[in-house]
Amino acid sequence: MERADPRPLYVQLADQLERAIRDGALGPGERLPSARSLAAALSTTPVTVHQAFQRLRSRGLAASRVGSGTYVAGSRPAAAASAGLAAHVSLDRREPPAALFPADVIRQIMDRILDDEGGEAFAYGDPGGDRDLKEVLSGDLVEAGFGLSGRDLVVFSGAQQALSLLFRAHLQRGDWVVVERPTYPGVLRLLQQAGARVEAVDVGPDGPDPERLAQVLDMRPVRLVYSLPVYHNPTGLCWSVECKRRVAELCAARGVVLVEDDALSGVDFGHGRPRALAACAPACRNVVYVRSFSMILMPGFRLGYCLAPRELANTLKRAKEEADLLTSGFFQRVLCRFISEGHMRRHLTLIEPYYRDLFAQATAAAAAILAPAGFTLTPGVGGPSLWGRLPEGVPGGLFGRHCIREGVGVVPGESYSLDQSTADGVGLAFSRLHPEAWEEGLRRVARAADAARREARAGQAGR
Amino acid sequence: MERADPRPLYVQLADQLERAIRDGALGPGERLPSARSLAAALSTTPVTVHQAFQRLRSRGLAASRVGSGTYVAGSRPAAAASAGLAAHVSLDRREPPAALFPADVIRQIMDRILDDEGGEAFAYGDPGGDRDLKEVLSGDLVEAGFGLSGRDLVVFSGAQQALSLLFRAHLQRGDWVVVERPTYPGVLRLLQQAGARVEAVDVGPDGPDPERLAQVLDMRPVRLVYSLPVYHNPTGLCWSVECKRRVAELCAARGVVLVEDDALSGVDFGHGRPRALAACAPACRNVVYVRSFSMILMPGFRLGYCLAPRELANTLKRAKEEADLLTSGFFQRVLCRFISEGHMRRHLTLIEPYYRDLFAQATAAAAAILAPAGFTLTPGVGGPSLWGRLPEGVPGGLFGRHCIREGVGVVPGESYSLDQSTADGVGLAFSRLHPEAWEEGLRRVARAADAARREARAGQAGR
Repeated sequence: MERADPRPLYVQLADQLERAIRDGALGPGERLPSARSLAAALSTTPVTVHQAFQRLRSRGLAASRVGSGTYVAGSRPAAAASAGLAAHVSLDRREPPAALFPADVIRQIMDRILDDEGGEAFAYGDPGGDRDLKEVLSGDLVEAGFGLSGRDLVVFSGAQQALSLLFRAHLQRGDWVVVERPTYPGVLRLLQQAGARVEAVDVGPDGPDPERLAQVLDMRPVRLVYSLPVYHNPTGLCWSVECKRRVAELCAARGVVLVEDDALSGVDFGHGRPRALAACAPACRNVVYVRSFSMILMPGFRLGYCLAPRELANTLKRAKEEADLLTSGFFQRVLCRFISEGHMRRHLTLIEPYYRDLFAQATAAAAAILAPAGFTLTPGVGGPSLWGRLPEGVPGGLFGRHCIREGVGVVPGESYSLDQSTADGVGLAFSRLHPEAWEEGLRRVARAADAARREARAGQAGR
Repeated sequence: MERADPRPLYVQLADQLERAIRDGALGPGERLPSARSLAAALSTTPVTVHQAFQRLRSRGLAASRVGSGTYVAGSRPAAAASAGLAAHVSLDRREPPAALFPADVIRQIMDRILDDEGGEAFAYGDPGGDRDLKEVLSGDLVEAGFGLSGRDLVVFSGAQQALSLLFRAHLQRGDWVVVERPTYPGVLRLLQQAGARVEAVDVGPDGPDPERLAQVLDMRPVRLVYSLPVYHNPTGLCWSVECKRRVAELCAARGVVLVEDDALSGVDFGHGRPRALAACAPACRNVVYVRSFSMILMPGFRLGYCLAPRELANTLKRAKEEADLLTSGFFQRVLCRFISEGHMRRHLTLIEPYYRDLFAQATAAAAAILAPAGFTLTPGVGGPSLWGRLPEGVPGGLFGRHCIREGVGVVPGESYSLDQSTADGVGLAFSRLHPEAWEEGLRRVARAADAARREARAGQAGR
């Protein structure tokens, strides 16, 4: 390209690419280089390249495929896709694929909000959350059987922010916290950061054993219990209703805050729609219910909320205001209309069959590939991931290293607890994957375990 | 309204309002009740009322005016607007009016991003910030004379989040911090929260006195200096270039982190575009530059960033990820295109004359109304607010109470420092106000001061 050429760089680049396409140097279905690599090659910025691609698209010469790049218009990029598969398979991402996000409806709603509000759409708003959104969310909660009296909603930039501010507001260094074993690694990092002392209770097919939890609560001055009662992360288990009630009672009797982290309640994986713990124990006043929309809507929205006893909710509002003033009111009003106009309900009927089929395929494939390789799989009932124990004689650390060599990304078992008690496990997530990619990933996991066992044996023999 | 009527409530409500407009019961220019009050009266939700209003608007029967409500189409709501003015005047908001926000350009950019990316626009992104955005921001900084080597950008949900995570990452309880006196109240709250010990240095016409700062740095083991060198909040002063350089040198020599909080550098209020401190001392490696877009673009975007020495930047990235995983990539890419396509530059040329005229009018009105009432005004050179000392014999607390009685909102002087040393001051912000509203507010401030002085005298006489 000519820097002396008076036309913008992106126009020059688009014209060059157009020539290459028209000359046949770039064939139909061929993948264009990534914006980053092309920018590096041309000593320009990815933005310039993106603009050039956009120009090609607007002329019908190229098309973008969600998550996979930009292609010359005219045919399937089949070869390119399988080439991508061969390089690396990620079994460590739990969110749904972007193709499922309701981008068109969201776009229409954004347009209407801008019609109605103009620039006001981007003004400051209510620090604790948009009032209309909170009203709509409350309505849904009441319908789902939640008790709302004496409680309040606070809107956050995702459930992660709700949890991080909750732990900061409610915990002091040295406080005891109970979690399930295994549990969501992100929360363990937050608890470490907060200086909490953590006690874990194993999660069984019906949830944690309430008697074991009662013992821990008798033994330690526990300040908070963190739980994932519906489609537990990573096992995919659901607590029984009896377990939810009993744990709520135990925490209520001792005045312990019980946090329910919920991303998937109300989604039917084939056994009916499980109810949130907070809806099974509506009178229990110390439950803090944290809701994420990342799994049922889209993660990049960065919206979540928390239903908490009023006093704690007020503390959280202050903490939220201090942390970042407020979450953008624009997306909050988008979510408000999305729910109040019935789109959320419709959207759930779309993603439910997707999730259900994917879960059935994923667990069947895991049973077919990992069980014969010696893995012990926890029989979950839904969700975007599963949990297994490594075969006998496979050390977690070695297994992780062989996964890297095999080109498969997994979350190592040791991330799911603060001691080494889950180091012989592995979490595997499938929600974004085509079944073939999932199966290929599982085969690599099986090979990595086999290689790790052989290396461990050789090491022992060599001693 | 009839709950038995099969039509949605909002359609029924819109039809009722339409009848009232066509019958003349609601006249042209008349303000419709607020969505909240109408919802309460009809036992429905504000969302329903908003939908009804929207229906009226789409039929050309009503129009919304930014920030003031929905009116029957056909004439100016002059009476309603002045009625609103009479009730309460807020001199405590610094952001620009929503009518200045570039909503149309933003909307076009959002459309193009959704054309290009579809649902992928709402996927997770890079925790430290969108790469293209960071590249564009870096380019602008280089152009403005910043030294970038050994530093990194981190994107946050507004400057408030940058500051709150910076203080948490860099300060321990008991650490000494230097601020200007007066200074931004929000930061003082964050410092209190962090358990910092705060020393204040008076800000003069050219900035704080470097020799005084040097004394403080010699006296205390200071860990961080927080500064507002360009259009200082609340005084509107700009540090001289000499002062910026000298303070940077002092902090560099002692290894103290120097935070520059910048919302308005690059905006010309009539004396040329002032340069950020970080651009005046590009080699100073311990400056942390925090940029807010709330004043120059729009606050509801919730985007800001921080340029920090690489090691600290990496710490901040981890803190950001822990706090809320990441800021929505969608808005980041909107901002990226807004800047890279030249809209930001054009937008600045629009808001500059607005700010300049407003500042001239506001300072002239303050000189005309407050000076005769005994206030001593700090002669700022730009920005959205000014700072004054209360007249002799007016106690800050009493003054605040009389402001409430007079119906004028001000930020009390004592918020601008952690001791009582600024209790005899007052911060007054005008960026959202029509000149008449500003003048009316100032008259109320003058009356409140007068009433407070009389009450104080009566109290002393009564002793």
